[in-house]
Amino acid sequence: MTDKLLNQLSLVEAIKAIESGDSTAEAIINACYDQIDAREPQVAAWQYSLTREQYLHAYHANEAFFKGSRLKGLPVGIKDTIDTAAMPTEMGSRLHVGRQPVDDASCVALLQQAGGVVLGKTVTTEFAYFQPGVTANPKNLGHTPGGSSSGSAAAVADYMVPAALGSQTAASVIRPAAYCGTVGYVGSYGEFSSRGIQPLSQSLDSLGVFARSVDDIVLLRSVLLSNTDVNSDEPMKPKRILVCPGSNVGDTDEDMNAAMAELVAQLQQQGIETPELDSCDLIKRLVGNHETVMAYEVYRNLATERQHPETLSESFCGLLHEGANISRADYLAALLNISKTARWLWHQDPDIDAILAPAAPGAAPVGLAATGKPYMSRPWQAMGLPVVTLPGLTNAAGLPLGVQLIGKARDDDSLLQTARWLQSHVKGLSL
Amino acid sequence: MTDKLLNQLSLVEAIKAIESGDSTAEAIINACYDQIDAREPQVAAWQYSLTREQYLHAYHANEAFFKGSRLKGLPVGIKDTIDTAAMPTEMGSRLHVGRQPVDDASCVALLQQAGGVVLGKTVTTEFAYFQPGVTANPKNLGHTPGGSSSGSAAAVADYMVPAALGSQTAASVIRPAAYCGTVGYVGSYGEFSSRGIQPLSQSLDSLGVFARSVDDIVLLRSVLLSNTDVNSDEPMKPKRILVCPGSNVGDTDEDMNAAMAELVAQLQQQGIETPELDSCDLIKRLVGNHETVMAYEVYRNLATERQHPETLSESFCGLLHEGANISRADYLAALLNISKTARWLWHQDPDIDAILAPAAPGAAPVGLAATGKPYMSRPWQAMGLPVVTLPGLTNAAGLPLGVQLIGKARDDDSLLQTARWLQSHVKGLSL
Repeated sequence: MTDKLLNQLSLVEAIKAIESGDSTAEAIINACYDQIDAREPQVAAWQYSLTREQYLHAYHANEAFFKGSRLKGLPVGIKDTIDTAAMPTEMGSRLHVGRQPVDDASCVALLQQAGGVVLGKTVTTEFAYFQPGVTANPKNLGHTPGGSSSGSAAAVADYMVPAALGSQTAASVIRPAAYCGTVGYVGSYGEFSSRGIQPLSQSLDSLGVFARSVDDIVLLRSVLLSNTDVNSDEPMKPKRILVCPGSNVGDTDEDMNAAMAELVAQLQQQGIETPELDSCDLIKRLVGNHETVMAYEVYRNLATERQHPETLSESFCGLLHEGANISRADYLAALLNISKTARWLWHQDPDIDAILAPAAPGAAPVGLAATGKPYMSRPWQAMGLPVVTLPGLTNAAGLPLGVQLIGKARDDDSLLQTARWLQSHVKGLSL
Repeated sequence: MTDKLLNQLSLVEAIKAIESGDSTAEAIINACYDQIDAREPQVAAWQYSLTREQYLHAYHANEAFFKGSRLKGLPVGIKDTIDTAAMPTEMGSRLHVGRQPVDDASCVALLQQAGGVVLGKTVTTEFAYFQPGVTANPKNLGHTPGGSSSGSAAAVADYMVPAALGSQTAASVIRPAAYCGTVGYVGSYGEFSSRGIQPLSQSLDSLGVFARSVDDIVLLRSVLLSNTDVNSDEPMKPKRILVCPGSNVGDTDEDMNAAMAELVAQLQQQGIETPELDSCDLIKRLVGNHETVMAYEVYRNLATERQHPETLSESFCGLLHEGANISRADYLAALLNISKTARWLWHQDPDIDAILAPAAPGAAPVGLAATGKPYMSRPWQAMGLPVVTLPGLTNAAGLPLGVQLIGKARDDDSLLQTARWLQSHVKGLSL
């Protein structure tokens, strides 16, 4: 066993500790609750949660099932835009206070069937858009945790739970993972069941997962796909990683530029080729295309909510107004350009294993009134690509600087094997 | 005004009659209820419905709103896989008897905001798959209405309501529209909000609409897209229609073959070119690809339901079993072949306006124990194309024979303008 505290174990480490008899689920659950008791008043990651007594009661009532299960009764957090039959799902909205769904989302059902326990619902921005919830960044309480999956990122980064679900339409997993310093994964478009995940934009929404290691992501992905085995391929050393420096998509700060340069130098030292993406204006165009598609679709998806403007934030009203005014021709042109760029991207250089880019413009901005800029994620999300945020780098103030590794559509397995290799072989990204 | 009975008016005709003072919403609503009272005991289209008194009470309580609205307080049916906050949504499943969603699906909210009234929920097969509900074909009660949107098709075809929503994953709108003899429309993949529509398969599900004319479809499409104006383009005479005879995709019967031949001859008489699709084996392969994708995804989406096999039909258990045993490699290969074929299809002949094919192998089969074969729809649905069923043709026994007109992805507007032209200019398809 490592010298980590029990609540700091990754999910895979915790399961091993339970299986080997080095620890018990109950001890780990208690360590998580100790952390929540100590830190939740400042971090405010949870919208709703089971008490320690409720959790342990539920665990003991089904102890034999949990002991034989894959996830051993360990806790997970669920973003509060994902429906749960046993807890409210309020979407960060004043309109939906107390809203109690009748069904579990399929992703929640799959986690529970594998022996995961929903410790609680995590704070989301209003309808997974920009208006922040109450969550603070656990690495510095004066800074934003990022959004929209704010509580899920903070709860995992602050060792309250080993894993949590989120969702991404623009940058809602990759950015908070980067800001809080944890691993974030967004699946390829269409990869997972979206049943019961409240949608924003049908062409863009993806399920996401937060955890402490890529190994954990691989395990949870297998649970969410109802696969009985995890992908047991060896971590895959990449040959060529295409580098897309942030400055080509939108402004990145000097800390991030320095961290990216240092990381690229390390990859080169390992013998990995790191050509730079030259046609970055094509990628940059997708930022605007993504905004167009999102606003157009949000306006249609939130048909009920827009009848209640008095319950909506100014920023959300702005998004609806934008969506109402986008012409169908502009919307279709944006979709067309996105699909053309997606076909072009990997054909330039078929030997590329993955793309490396900053996960955010820099470290988490100061203040809780906004969640930071999403433009570093919009192009990849528009194309429906799988993405992993790798933590480990920091700025001078010790705040996390996340980088993202982007894979080919529907080849999430290869992406994760590449990410595992980087996480175990590259200084600064190692656990 | 026409000499139709009030309940036989198309939606557009009914709105005109109300606006001109020739009739009133109340008179039309009452005519619909008279028809339901007379026919529902035999047709069994409704899973749940408002009583006449409830409906009229709701209408009078908001009469000023309805009079100023686009849809004038006229009734619509909603397939019982689409969530409604005021009525149960049971998905044709024993597991979900009495299930009461907390929200309206966005498509339901949009209809209501436009002045449509949900008269009731229409019978669906179990989870919109094969196991039939109780509905009979209104054109011959001994025959299946088709499925899965059985009640929506039957209610519109039998003049109980002017329009109804359905959904299609394989053939669930196009086939029942063909069997019952009404217009059915399936939107392009991703075209409409799917929020609150219980999903089967995230890569295949589409919203559908049943009505009595393509004009009605154009109006309802504009409501469902939150567009304030309907597409006022003139009906578009096609230059070239690609013909895909059913025999190239799967068996079609002699009645259907004769009807298709007669229709193609008529198109030619009108000066429309009708080349035949020659590489039909590529289309035929999509039948199997579609089955693979659907089974794989259903197994993941219905994570909760598959824990309760005692509540499921044998056919649904079979589908789940199939889905559990499809390898990820086979699933991805099917998706890849579908997208390759979709890119190939229209590039063969860019002057093609639409594709014409049988909507079903023939007329509705006898008996209510099955809903007919879905293979005529699987290829187009796999590619996410918009489709319209055009009624009007019949076999010797007088049963409807439906043909389908298939458009380019996301160009639903052009497809509907072509369909409008055919409906007003081609003998046998005219209203």
